[in-house]
Amino acid sequence: MRQFCGLHENGPFHGETASTAARYPSRPMAGTGSHTYQAPKGTRDFYPSDLAVRRHIEGAWRSASIDCGFDEVEGPTFEHLELYTAKSGDGIVNELFSFRRAGGENDYALRPEFTPTLARMVAARAGSLPVPVKWFAIPNMFRAERPQRGRLREFVQWNVDVCGVEGAAHDVDVIACAVLALERLGLRPTDVEVRLSHRVAIARMLAALGVADEKTGDAMTLLDRRDKLKPEEFAERAAALGLSADAVARFDTAARATQRLSEPVAALAAKIGVPEAEFAALDEVRAAAERAGILEWCTVDVGIVRGLAYYTGTVFEVHEVSGAERAVAGGGRYDGLVELFGGPKMPACGFGMGDVVLANVLRDRKLLPEDGATLLPRPDAFVVSAGGETAEALLPSLLMRLRRAGLHARTTTKTTKNVGKLLGDAGKARARFAVILGAELADGNVAVKDLDAGTQAVVPLAELESSLHPRA
Amino acid sequence: MRQFCGLHENGPFHGETASTAARYPSRPMAGTGSHTYQAPKGTRDFYPSDLAVRRHIEGAWRSASIDCGFDEVEGPTFEHLELYTAKSGDGIVNELFSFRRAGGENDYALRPEFTPTLARMVAARAGSLPVPVKWFAIPNMFRAERPQRGRLREFVQWNVDVCGVEGAAHDVDVIACAVLALERLGLRPTDVEVRLSHRVAIARMLAALGVADEKTGDAMTLLDRRDKLKPEEFAERAAALGLSADAVARFDTAARATQRLSEPVAALAAKIGVPEAEFAALDEVRAAAERAGILEWCTVDVGIVRGLAYYTGTVFEVHEVSGAERAVAGGGRYDGLVELFGGPKMPACGFGMGDVVLANVLRDRKLLPEDGATLLPRPDAFVVSAGGETAEALLPSLLMRLRRAGLHARTTTKTTKNVGKLLGDAGKARARFAVILGAELADGNVAVKDLDAGTQAVVPLAELESSLHPRA
Repeated sequence: MRQFCGLHENGPFHGETASTAARYPSRPMAGTGSHTYQAPKGTRDFYPSDLAVRRHIEGAWRSASIDCGFDEVEGPTFEHLELYTAKSGDGIVNELFSFRRAGGENDYALRPEFTPTLARMVAARAGSLPVPVKWFAIPNMFRAERPQRGRLREFVQWNVDVCGVEGAAHDVDVIACAVLALERLGLRPTDVEVRLSHRVAIARMLAALGVADEKTGDAMTLLDRRDKLKPEEFAERAAALGLSADAVARFDTAARATQRLSEPVAALAAKIGVPEAEFAALDEVRAAAERAGILEWCTVDVGIVRGLAYYTGTVFEVHEVSGAERAVAGGGRYDGLVELFGGPKMPACGFGMGDVVLANVLRDRKLLPEDGATLLPRPDAFVVSAGGETAEALLPSLLMRLRRAGLHARTTTKTTKNVGKLLGDAGKARARFAVILGAELADGNVAVKDLDAGTQAVVPLAELESSLHPRA
Repeated sequence: MRQFCGLHENGPFHGETASTAARYPSRPMAGTGSHTYQAPKGTRDFYPSDLAVRRHIEGAWRSASIDCGFDEVEGPTFEHLELYTAKSGDGIVNELFSFRRAGGENDYALRPEFTPTLARMVAARAGSLPVPVKWFAIPNMFRAERPQRGRLREFVQWNVDVCGVEGAAHDVDVIACAVLALERLGLRPTDVEVRLSHRVAIARMLAALGVADEKTGDAMTLLDRRDKLKPEEFAERAAALGLSADAVARFDTAARATQRLSEPVAALAAKIGVPEAEFAALDEVRAAAERAGILEWCTVDVGIVRGLAYYTGTVFEVHEVSGAERAVAGGGRYDGLVELFGGPKMPACGFGMGDVVLANVLRDRKLLPEDGATLLPRPDAFVVSAGGETAEALLPSLLMRLRRAGLHARTTTKTTKNVGKLLGDAGKARARFAVILGAELADGNVAVKDLDAGTQAVVPLAELESSLHPRA
């Protein structure tokens, strides 16, 4: 069964029978005797039509970020290994591509996430950065995991973070940025949803259910794993938290509790059987989401915990509504993060959104073209020579003249004088206009064919640029 | 002595006394007890104003590539180590960041150049790609060298290649693309020049000087190293090639021979004392450069050889005219390359241009702003509340409304009702318009201040978008 489609992920992968060779039809290497080199497993070769899809997605990310007032940053592709191990322990090393130079003293790792780099950069300049720090980044990331659907060894991840400010309005500021990008890619609340929760609300709910303070962490881990456990196993572990039979039942209800964020949190509290006041933090997020006009995109999902220990408030994930795919994005508030990485105490909230799952969802929703090449920039002019020395001699300088004027100008290497064939090439290149250098040159003119409208005009060579500027 | 300026290269470097701490003024970590993490040596943290400079350069690269008809591609950030060692030998390993996963079987390396990836990708689809293959890429590259001026361990390199076609016109097609980008960055032929040569012409010149066929490679190596050798050392090595005293003198002249490409090659031949016909290949490049209108950017430099053995025809480097910096770009024709990497025999020509030396040249020529932040996208609207519940409640939804309309909209976290102070923030953000939510709201209006013109108008809230679209 073919597990992958679209972008060219390099394999073979476990559980996939389509061979790399089948996905990369290559010409027989008759006579060369050399073998074909393969890209590393779990990485991608982006041919033009593949990269056009990636640039389309990145374009929505970038424009949404800028319009929402975030500034772009970047860091090194590899960091000192300790940046990742110091906070997460050595366990993470297995998921990292780590390395050391021969004779070198330092261990490095390809970045598996951007947050430690961001926290390091904020920490280094915390005293001089204007607050709030609103940053985004679109770095490539590396995880030494087994490649599978939605999970590659190299991928691109959009990161959006706000540092230095607290409160639900700022949580919603980053969530709204994610929503804006999803909207620009053509997604609707019927396609994907922001499932959110709040660690403070959950902790208070757990306390109201009878979970002792020192068991809160264990209880959250249990919430996080609810989908992976059988009902009896869940009940057993919940009881081990010191809960009464009644509280176990209510905890079980809570673990599965979801509702539209537009519904009052009182409904959620009543369903679980805890006082409404415990969900005050969630109610603030609801109010802020309503003010920002993104309420219809959001649901409350008590089971959203986010494994990473550093989250302290709102947590959220973006999911395809049916739950068929991995999370499209995940993030939340992590007020201790900058301090963890050597900076001052500084509240912060952010998320990461990878390109792989998102592309799967877009493709599933028919929001990506069958042929990514249609996303490539269209040539403004396709210049051809209908023959003759004057035309041949003029062509290179005319191309450069148009390019110097900011026009996307192409030509063909075909040497036929059959203008119909040459125009065929112009059409294949998806050019807006064909410029034909022919007999009109004797009078200082060229023929300009509007390939969308099918009309043709004779234009003075000296005024060519003004007739080629794309219409709105 | 401070060797670096501008972009924030992480150190310390050999020969540099400015400490990393001095370049990264960080706030004292009172009470946290944790240390500040550093980026790896020779890598860069791109804060917003730094990344704006990089994006400015990449923007010129990308727009020039697209206008010249090249399609963008990308490959994995790391490749199998053998992709680099198979053709270059194990010697290259010292310059690579190579690694192996614990328990893994494969050695990998961070890409030190893009050409092997490009050749691998072309080879894999050589049978189905439309010819000519005109590709560009803007990948990050990694070299485990000692960081110094113009040379970092991670940098960005623009690659432009044409495959499947031969002839000087196509060599000039890629060179003209480089020239277009340099022009768009504000450089002129008085700032940088394309120094070019041709391996076939050089081989014929060497033969005419009496170098035996089997010594051609050694003679080219000697040409390549001319600047590093003392005159007597050069003469000694030239004599060892079997040259007569007269031929050694002419070889010495050749090694230093440069002239404008616009001058006839006969002048060059006469200076060295070889028949003009030996430089026929260079004359073809001259003619093609003239047709494309880039002649004024080019010089002939017989000493340009390009160390990499795979070049077969035209070779060129872009240099700052005084020679004060490393090469800005280098490339040439390598007709055997695709075949070397497992593909069919396929002519090809291309170049690479790194961001580090180019940025140094641009900065030296005052072609980059003192503060990169002025290159950041300007906000269309800076929305502030002059106080009042209606304004406060409206602000988040109005921001989202403007952003959904494709406008770059920001606000401030300041809670003052002093509109002058709020407008000060709008000015600092370089916004085009300030939108003031005040008393006019009662009538469904807002005040819009044009921050460039200094004018102010009252606009119906419902028609706000149309009054904010940036003027051309």
